[in-house]
Amino acid sequence: MSAIRHALTTKREDDFAQWYQEVVSAADMAEESGVRGCMVIKPWGYGIWERMQRLLDARIKAAGVQNAYFPLFIPLGNFEREAAHVEGFAKEMAVVTHHRLIADGKGGLIPDPEAKLEEPLVVRPTSETIIGDAMSRWVQSWRDLPLLLNQWANVVRWEMRTRMFLRTSEFLWQEGHTAHENREDALKETMRALEMYRAFAEEDLSVPVIAGEKPENERFPGAVSTFSIEAMMQDGKALQAGTSHYLGTSFAEAASIRFQDREGGQQLAHTTSWGVSTRLIGAMIMTHGDDDGLRVPPALAPWQIVILPMLRDNDGDAALLDYCESLRGAIAAQQVFGEPIRVLLDSKPGKAAAKRWDWVRKGAPVIIEVGPRDMEAGKVSLLRRDQLWGSDGKPAFQGPSRDDTAQSIGAVLAEIQQVLFAQAAERRDANIVRGVSSFDELAAFFAEDKRYPGWVEVQWSRPTGAELDNVVERIKALKLTFRNVPLDAAPADGECLFTGAPAVERIYVARAY
Amino acid sequence: MSAIRHALTTKREDDFAQWYQEVVSAADMAEESGVRGCMVIKPWGYGIWERMQRLLDARIKAAGVQNAYFPLFIPLGNFEREAAHVEGFAKEMAVVTHHRLIADGKGGLIPDPEAKLEEPLVVRPTSETIIGDAMSRWVQSWRDLPLLLNQWANVVRWEMRTRMFLRTSEFLWQEGHTAHENREDALKETMRALEMYRAFAEEDLSVPVIAGEKPENERFPGAVSTFSIEAMMQDGKALQAGTSHYLGTSFAEAASIRFQDREGGQQLAHTTSWGVSTRLIGAMIMTHGDDDGLRVPPALAPWQIVILPMLRDNDGDAALLDYCESLRGAIAAQQVFGEPIRVLLDSKPGKAAAKRWDWVRKGAPVIIEVGPRDMEAGKVSLLRRDQLWGSDGKPAFQGPSRDDTAQSIGAVLAEIQQVLFAQAAERRDANIVRGVSSFDELAAFFAEDKRYPGWVEVQWSRPTGAELDNVVERIKALKLTFRNVPLDAAPADGECLFTGAPAVERIYVARAY
Repeated sequence: MSAIRHALTTKREDDFAQWYQEVVSAADMAEESGVRGCMVIKPWGYGIWERMQRLLDARIKAAGVQNAYFPLFIPLGNFEREAAHVEGFAKEMAVVTHHRLIADGKGGLIPDPEAKLEEPLVVRPTSETIIGDAMSRWVQSWRDLPLLLNQWANVVRWEMRTRMFLRTSEFLWQEGHTAHENREDALKETMRALEMYRAFAEEDLSVPVIAGEKPENERFPGAVSTFSIEAMMQDGKALQAGTSHYLGTSFAEAASIRFQDREGGQQLAHTTSWGVSTRLIGAMIMTHGDDDGLRVPPALAPWQIVILPMLRDNDGDAALLDYCESLRGAIAAQQVFGEPIRVLLDSKPGKAAAKRWDWVRKGAPVIIEVGPRDMEAGKVSLLRRDQLWGSDGKPAFQGPSRDDTAQSIGAVLAEIQQVLFAQAAERRDANIVRGVSSFDELAAFFAEDKRYPGWVEVQWSRPTGAELDNVVERIKALKLTFRNVPLDAAPADGECLFTGAPAVERIYVARAY
Repeated sequence: MSAIRHALTTKREDDFAQWYQEVVSAADMAEESGVRGCMVIKPWGYGIWERMQRLLDARIKAAGVQNAYFPLFIPLGNFEREAAHVEGFAKEMAVVTHHRLIADGKGGLIPDPEAKLEEPLVVRPTSETIIGDAMSRWVQSWRDLPLLLNQWANVVRWEMRTRMFLRTSEFLWQEGHTAHENREDALKETMRALEMYRAFAEEDLSVPVIAGEKPENERFPGAVSTFSIEAMMQDGKALQAGTSHYLGTSFAEAASIRFQDREGGQQLAHTTSWGVSTRLIGAMIMTHGDDDGLRVPPALAPWQIVILPMLRDNDGDAALLDYCESLRGAIAAQQVFGEPIRVLLDSKPGKAAAKRWDWVRKGAPVIIEVGPRDMEAGKVSLLRRDQLWGSDGKPAFQGPSRDDTAQSIGAVLAEIQQVLFAQAAERRDANIVRGVSSFDELAAFFAEDKRYPGWVEVQWSRPTGAELDNVVERIKALKLTFRNVPLDAAPADGECLFTGAPAVERIYVARAY
């Protein structure tokens, strides 16, 4: 087997963090903007986000949730109402204090001291309080419930250390906010959103996840319970890929969301919120990327198929372009995942080989090259991104006929979608460790210098308050975090790894993003 | 003819401004948020915006323009670079000065004095400068041009007097930003975007518009030339519904967008920008609304057809619901405008008549009511929003068979789309006055107390600088503005209404939003 010359300079096993940055850059996903903590999402990265939006939005609408839009600015006072919420968010927000600039007399501009706001405005870090205000106006009677809202928006949480897609001061997300008559309905909605996220991650992103409840110390500020989907990255770390919160009545109380119940009494609504963000793009990169760049699951790829004509700048180019355009049309007339196939004929100037590697790094699922000899034989040269290298260390081109390609390409895309999921699920399952039964064993496991430390499923007594704080401190010293209590875990049957008390459930411990 | 009892309390002819507010509220489009100058866009209003986004986005992508996302925050310094641009925007922007809140010791929160930003950040009023920074990194050679970008985003321009959709501090829009090798290419793109907006307004919104060039005093700050589409509202006022700017090389110079040209020399790129916003929703309301509420063009309607079963809370309801669900399925399997028909079976609790009027006010294009007698006869009761009242002063229900309805409803929707356009175009054309040849005549025309003052097309000498300022002052005293110089106007053949010099072109004068 020959040595493969990979398309990236950094390999995952050599420096995963550096590799991640290289993929983001080499796949043309995003870059630093020059504005502290904010990134520019470039067309290929944003195109993937648009696909995520479209697919998740269809799931959201299918559940009867309606999109709406609420203000970017939240009056400072809103944050003073819900104590636990303030505690969790107060530290890191962008604050608008002036509404005008004036010349400083030295050729520059300054905030106009005459235009200072009486009450500062906070750029939304999340919208529970402002949407709660609207709900208090819209909900009068039990007949107005459930009220199921969602917003696609930008939010800001000031961050000192940022990382493209994973942690930026401004990011894009959706936030669902719902109000219900009682605890049972609200919890049902919390779990519906969680299951929606699981299906979205696994079916559309090909990212296997574990759905479960976060421990008390990881709850959303002010929530009664927080659930998450957790994904394992290729360095064995966990990434929280989506959350769903049951908020009880505390936000309803702060915003006064009250309704006349079926018996004529006044009740506080039970609310939920749930969200996923552009962080999912980071999860996708670290799940599917390889040493040649990104591999985009076909359901998310802005272009699922890229056709590259091998132009020679001669008289034969016109016929070759016709052949490629006819192929493009035939493929675009096919469907996969219930949508027309997205196929690009890339006839921009540039050498075909250079363009091929650009698209490999960007992770287009299928690249089809067509040269004069392919055309004469009625064939194409087809490269699957998930089967990039042959055993000879060269790109593994296949040579199907043009007609076969047009007919079967949808099935190929569907297969790639499955392959990416299966590869990730296999890796994830191989790196979950069970049966660790003492804290020392846990510490020893993570002390080993392994490429994939993976996750450890432990049994615990679900400590709360100060007892939990103590446990969290102990694992924090090992740079570990609690991820979640999986919904489908086996029942506990031993003692708590941390307290020695009888265990009541199983929880994942892992390093995390 | 009986007196019609309209669904709104305010009639257009009695108080147009009050009527507008009532439609926004009665059609459940938007409401005040409690945050100064910001509105909440409610699900029906936001659903219409989502439809606009989807339809315009397809036109943008078809032109080869790629979506991307740039930071919400723009460093203050960016606004100091392009002098004319500062001049135009400096007065009304939201300024972020702190990045943290702390407790004030009295139970409240204040901006943390320790967390004052060294350089304040401005919440984007538009993104020319920040996108220019990115372009300067991305453009090296003529091969990188044209660079065609678009962003869907929220922007903020601090407004003292606000009006739902028409003027709010925060609004939603798209902003196209492109860079080109030379003036000719950039101007071609400016005109392409303008034509795209014309087609979008007329075909998708059923809003007839006039495309033309804005006079110098109405140019975007820093632009070489600004073009617009202008629509006439039902009170005769003009509304600028979209703009497209040729920016020359001044923004490229400020952001240093330079490239190696085909001859190896260094050149500044020529840039353009173009945008439409949630203001279009206001334009749609004031174009199509009537004394019964909104009328949404079918291409924009989140639900094009609403089926209302006349439930009796008895044993017959199940069969009626089955009948309606089967009808819903049959309609949803049909297409109009190249998309599946969007049909809602509204079986929420509530009286059918009350629900009917809710949907009339919201402007659903077709309402289908189904009672037990309709079902027995294999029929439906169908109400077209554009033919609401019969000559007897009652709702003009038609009684087609269920099967005919399912088959022909797409054609009905396409017809309604045309009817709304034709009605608006007829009204617009009837209210454009030509042949006014002196300033006194112009003043006299607008001095009349007419419901539809309409627009006057005058000939002028295209004055500039101080001479133009003087002309603008004179018409401003009459509460008039220049709208645009229509692209398809007849050539000038007289003298300038304002200066007496030979006229060089025709321009619209009107009251405006």
